[in-house]
Amino acid sequence: MTSRERFLNACRCLPVDRPPVWIMRQAGRYLPEYRAMRKEHSFLNLVRTPELAAEITLQPLKRFDFDAAILFSDILVIPEALGMPFSFRDGGGIAMEFAIQNSDDLARLDLSDVTPRLAYVFEAIRLVRRRLGDTTTLLGFAGSPWTLATYMIEGGSSREFAAAKHLFHTDRALFNDLMESLTEAISSYLGAQITAGVDAIQIFDSWGGALPGSDYEEASLKWIRRIAETIDGRVPLILYARNTYASAIKQATSGIQVLSLDWTVDMAEARARLPDTLSIQGNLDPSLMETTPQITARETTRLLESMRGTDGFIVNLGHGIRPQARPECVAALVETVCQFK
Amino acid sequence: MTSRERFLNACRCLPVDRPPVWIMRQAGRYLPEYRAMRKEHSFLNLVRTPELAAEITLQPLKRFDFDAAILFSDILVIPEALGMPFSFRDGGGIAMEFAIQNSDDLARLDLSDVTPRLAYVFEAIRLVRRRLGDTTTLLGFAGSPWTLATYMIEGGSSREFAAAKHLFHTDRALFNDLMESLTEAISSYLGAQITAGVDAIQIFDSWGGALPGSDYEEASLKWIRRIAETIDGRVPLILYARNTYASAIKQATSGIQVLSLDWTVDMAEARARLPDTLSIQGNLDPSLMETTPQITARETTRLLESMRGTDGFIVNLGHGIRPQARPECVAALVETVCQFK
Repeated sequence: MTSRERFLNACRCLPVDRPPVWIMRQAGRYLPEYRAMRKEHSFLNLVRTPELAAEITLQPLKRFDFDAAILFSDILVIPEALGMPFSFRDGGGIAMEFAIQNSDDLARLDLSDVTPRLAYVFEAIRLVRRRLGDTTTLLGFAGSPWTLATYMIEGGSSREFAAAKHLFHTDRALFNDLMESLTEAISSYLGAQITAGVDAIQIFDSWGGALPGSDYEEASLKWIRRIAETIDGRVPLILYARNTYASAIKQATSGIQVLSLDWTVDMAEARARLPDTLSIQGNLDPSLMETTPQITARETTRLLESMRGTDGFIVNLGHGIRPQARPECVAALVETVCQFK
Repeated sequence: MTSRERFLNACRCLPVDRPPVWIMRQAGRYLPEYRAMRKEHSFLNLVRTPELAAEITLQPLKRFDFDAAILFSDILVIPEALGMPFSFRDGGGIAMEFAIQNSDDLARLDLSDVTPRLAYVFEAIRLVRRRLGDTTTLLGFAGSPWTLATYMIEGGSSREFAAAKHLFHTDRALFNDLMESLTEAISSYLGAQITAGVDAIQIFDSWGGALPGSDYEEASLKWIRRIAETIDGRVPLILYARNTYASAIKQATSGIQVLSLDWTVDMAEARARLPDTLSIQGNLDPSLMETTPQITARETTRLLESMRGTDGFIVNLGHGIRPQARPECVAALVETVCQFK
């Protein structure tokens, strides 16, 4: 069984020899070789240069026996392709070039087909696919419409999402217009990622947990459903939305194949609660990667044992790996999964 | 039906004329009269002076028809009474006077009965009780053992809780010793609050959601169960732990009477999922208090309608009210609940 067969089987709840493993942000700042490249290039330059993005995508697979590579990119390439560039604030966080507060702001967006302006992403995918061969999974991704909308309405990153929620409450028509545009752009983008060679796609609904549970369907999940309809099962769709476990049953029936759960969830309980046609992914505490290989191996074994005998399980962290993570802990995680019988 | 009967009935899932209402941090910085007092006194001085603490406790009830007052105090009075004072860092956050990393640090704590050193709290409760009379509920509270332990192990406030988790993983005996001491101190403290006159108690497991779901029982909930045993139903016990809905079924059977839910939960779905002997509290988005009275009234009505006909429901926010909240929105919330038929 190749690594790719293992991953795709797990996405479809089909039998596997052992659970596949990858980790969110596996190509990133905890790796010295990534930090070395960041000394030479800006983050945005790395994202926009297919050769460099491809190299970074493959860095973690040279060190660890991950079953999947995930394209090195950023969720904000979509707002940028729609005509809203972004930059990094000095004190941390993201600044968008403007904010959408009314229909005039919305009219500034370029709603023509976004894919030509994202050609650099598809070129990176083709480069990775060629180097990776057909035995390892390649994951594409996008931010959810709600998550991208928060940046575009707030004019950057936010803690409270007051402007985005305000627009949702006070001008549903404008909110929906923005969401329609984002849903269409993301759908085209993901379709083109599939054409370029990704095997599966993860949607990051990173700020879904900021929404009241009673608004989650209208403000976020309904737009993800539409994207799932346009993907139409061509590749498996994974949804990750931290702090939304109260909406897990709705998420499970939104047209996705895999639900990625954060660390607050007991995976065995989630397995028992959620439909058995849904695959689940997760969910080791990211802080384990900052402990020791021994602790990591022990906790990874505990997770694997709790899920023994269940199909439809992909090992991951419950959130992205942090810059202060120790590569030795990542190695211990991956080895423990690979040796699990 | 008095306000107190309404509140206590709702805690026990008994019939009420309308759901009772109060909000977390209702005595606090969004009120101009509180900010005026803070100009004259330090936060710690307010907490430690019964006359001042009592006055602040009653401030929100002079403005709004809340069904309950909650004592103005701080969860960190327990570590302080155990011999670990705290202060506020210049850049924000809490600094404890030392951190517990080994058994020598633990030995620095004063484990004799804490209640004499917390006499100022019980005096404040008696003052409030006298002024409030017997028709309005008075709530006491404490931090959970895990939540207090994070401050004591980290040596202050934290974002990642790396030290607390590390101790849990590497020295379970020392971790448990600390938790035993905290559980005993909190139990005595709450027992004395009941004697002084509180009608119900809320336990804030503020950092429960930082724990993996698979560790939540051992690291946090089991100690809350023990506290519930010592309270033994003398007054209703309310548990609030943001981002722990994946553990809601376990929490529901931990000996508490009321589970306070954060805003990510759809209350009607929670009502259907959780045991009908459990009362639930919550859960409007705190950011609503920063919108308009109209939006607040509309969303409050939506919550009330979704829970129509269910016993065991207390209206609250899904998290503490923030300093930037508008008192007009709080007024709209409370009026909407009071007029609900």
